[in-house]
Amino acid sequence: MEKPHHVVIIGGGFGGLYAAKSLKRAPVRVTVLDRRNFHLFQPLLYQVATGTLSPANIAAPLRAILKRQENVRVLLGEAIDIDVSNRRVVLSDGELSYDTLIVAAGVRHHYFGRDEWERLAPGLKTIEDATEMRRRILLAFEAAEREGDPGELRAWLTFVVVGGGPTGVELAGAVGEIARHTLKHDFRAINPADARIVLVEGMDRVLPPYPPTLSARAEAGLNRLGVTVQTGAMVTDIDADAVTIRCGERRERIPTRTVLWAAGVQASTLGGVLASATGAAVDRVGRVVVEPDLSVAAHPEVFVIGDLAHFSHHTGTPLPGVAPVAMQQGRYVATLIMRRLRGETMPPFRYRDYGSMATIGRAEAVADLGWVQFSGFFAWLAWLFIHLIHLVQFQNRLLVLIQWAWNYFTWNRYARLITGKNPLPLLR
Amino acid sequence: MEKPHHVVIIGGGFGGLYAAKSLKRAPVRVTVLDRRNFHLFQPLLYQVATGTLSPANIAAPLRAILKRQENVRVLLGEAIDIDVSNRRVVLSDGELSYDTLIVAAGVRHHYFGRDEWERLAPGLKTIEDATEMRRRILLAFEAAEREGDPGELRAWLTFVVVGGGPTGVELAGAVGEIARHTLKHDFRAINPADARIVLVEGMDRVLPPYPPTLSARAEAGLNRLGVTVQTGAMVTDIDADAVTIRCGERRERIPTRTVLWAAGVQASTLGGVLASATGAAVDRVGRVVVEPDLSVAAHPEVFVIGDLAHFSHHTGTPLPGVAPVAMQQGRYVATLIMRRLRGETMPPFRYRDYGSMATIGRAEAVADLGWVQFSGFFAWLAWLFIHLIHLVQFQNRLLVLIQWAWNYFTWNRYARLITGKNPLPLLR
Repeated sequence: MEKPHHVVIIGGGFGGLYAAKSLKRAPVRVTVLDRRNFHLFQPLLYQVATGTLSPANIAAPLRAILKRQENVRVLLGEAIDIDVSNRRVVLSDGELSYDTLIVAAGVRHHYFGRDEWERLAPGLKTIEDATEMRRRILLAFEAAEREGDPGELRAWLTFVVVGGGPTGVELAGAVGEIARHTLKHDFRAINPADARIVLVEGMDRVLPPYPPTLSARAEAGLNRLGVTVQTGAMVTDIDADAVTIRCGERRERIPTRTVLWAAGVQASTLGGVLASATGAAVDRVGRVVVEPDLSVAAHPEVFVIGDLAHFSHHTGTPLPGVAPVAMQQGRYVATLIMRRLRGETMPPFRYRDYGSMATIGRAEAVADLGWVQFSGFFAWLAWLFIHLIHLVQFQNRLLVLIQWAWNYFTWNRYARLITGKNPLPLLR
Repeated sequence: MEKPHHVVIIGGGFGGLYAAKSLKRAPVRVTVLDRRNFHLFQPLLYQVATGTLSPANIAAPLRAILKRQENVRVLLGEAIDIDVSNRRVVLSDGELSYDTLIVAAGVRHHYFGRDEWERLAPGLKTIEDATEMRRRILLAFEAAEREGDPGELRAWLTFVVVGGGPTGVELAGAVGEIARHTLKHDFRAINPADARIVLVEGMDRVLPPYPPTLSARAEAGLNRLGVTVQTGAMVTDIDADAVTIRCGERRERIPTRTVLWAAGVQASTLGGVLASATGAAVDRVGRVVVEPDLSVAAHPEVFVIGDLAHFSHHTGTPLPGVAPVAMQQGRYVATLIMRRLRGETMPPFRYRDYGSMATIGRAEAVADLGWVQFSGFFAWLAWLFIHLIHLVQFQNRLLVLIQWAWNYFTWNRYARLITGKNPLPLLR
């Protein structure tokens, strides 16, 4: 008996997971390879970084999700090379043969060539990033409580968020809420509401992909939470004591101990590996330029989906790196594989944009559904609902809902733990 | 106006926290000093280590607990020395003057002089310990799934728990449940139920402080979960590939990659610091021998409570290092301080032992209330109830209850995350 067609999926994020699930009834063997043992619901990662949710609330073990899908096996491991001529994925400790390969390895943050900033300004892509951000935010208030020098105190109570996209807006809003509400009665020597929160964005408004009216409402919402929005500003330097920004001709040095990075992303190194193996083009941030059917030039058996794919057919600009794109691409490729096995063809991929949303804070969000824009309480409720239904595992939905309700009624955040090997190194 | 009497409490565990809360109406200023920003509910730490609960479910920010208590301030910092003649606590970065000092710095694990075992056999005292244990347990099954060599596979699927006290019994039982039930459908190449779990105890039965009938029931419960109990056995060596034990004349080398340490504890270094400063005696594990009123010899203004105190008045043997002892001692010292300030005296401390309990697994526990012993489902329900009501913060009670209910009905554990800077180092 012939062995069934083997589909290898690199990455268990939205793209990879939806591809695997959509292959449930296909006559194929599926291997999902990931460096982590869980699927991470990245849109809520900022809530871990700001103490509302626990890591496990937004991360579901891949094995648990796929345990009943008999044609899937999950492997924990790291792909380091792809040998397209022999159809093999090279792992750090072995290899995997494939008939069809789906690369959904995602992106990581990018410091525009200033890698030394990473240590000073952590980004937000992994669970560890989120707990590190949480540690820094909470430690800054702790250090301020013990600080005698007014200049140092000011620096500890200044938070700079770099990047005014959805993640930056959500982070800045959450830090504003922490300072104004969550910590209100917690300290004796400082008033946490004195914290200065600066959101730095290079474009002329926050949430650049959204309509200008929504950007303005988001900015107004941030202002109400005590966030100063600095648009048209480039970060020119970050050191242990300050962030330096340039707005046109003006330069400003903002003394701070806490810088949160929500700016650039860069494709996983597998993008470059795949491009050199196949001759495919990569864009400025290393994403692989894909064909209209998401395959890689001259390799119809290799697909790239999700944040790692640069898809600009029909659309002109590349599709954004958001979960709905990855999910639709995962489903598309799964369907394409099934049709091919039946000798059928399929029309090119088309992204159906149902809109996008971002929260600013409690009961405050903006939503752009294309045909309608709205903001405020109902946008926030819509945001909550959409995120809850897309969370994997019913238990997590329930736990998240309870914690949101609690947060809403008490302003409190219970996952405010400073963890890590050395919890105190920032206190000097 | 005279400054109010200043009580400094080192440690925000059960002893320190209950002392601080009991001083709510006292005419004193209270400073709670801790290296961590949260109170940890240690009795449930093993459930974090085995993926049932998230760290934040059993840890509550000290500031959040004490925010409404106006006479308390919380300081994040580390005490490194105590200057009893000048009534000062020396911190790693400053100092604190006190009128009364309560030292409740607890214990850490102890490897009987074999500190090199710590790296190979992590203990369970902190949140980081728990996530490290969780990482090792889960990675062992992942490595087994990818292992081709039968001997190596056997070693990956062997788990050795050292120490048959409550923590060891609870850990071994939970690993048994994970292997037999939680992971049942998760793997394709291995059957997790093939895992061998060995609990090693030096005495002649598990749970030595309990009546022999309960020890026997605990052992039977562990056997039903696939745990092999090896009593009368000493660990003579631990290396990267095996644990060597000695039972009388017999020596056995158990090849394993996962060793969980639940054996010895040793007093915090502050115990020794305090002993040399005051001339107080310390016992074999470094606990400070205290007076009948929990003060330190010749220093009525210095108290030691909780796991760090060696109290054997009336009792003959020192009181065990459990939460109820620490809680009662914290309350006692708080009352003593208030009475002293009013010029009153107080009878010596007396521990009221309401009994003790340990869980073995799902719907299985043993309880010894002194006047009655019982085990099975009702002991388990009593265990659940007692632990839930003592958890700090209502939200955590609700979240823990939901996760227990889920675990009970589905056998699943959702907090099965492999986290840490390098999630894969154990896979070789």
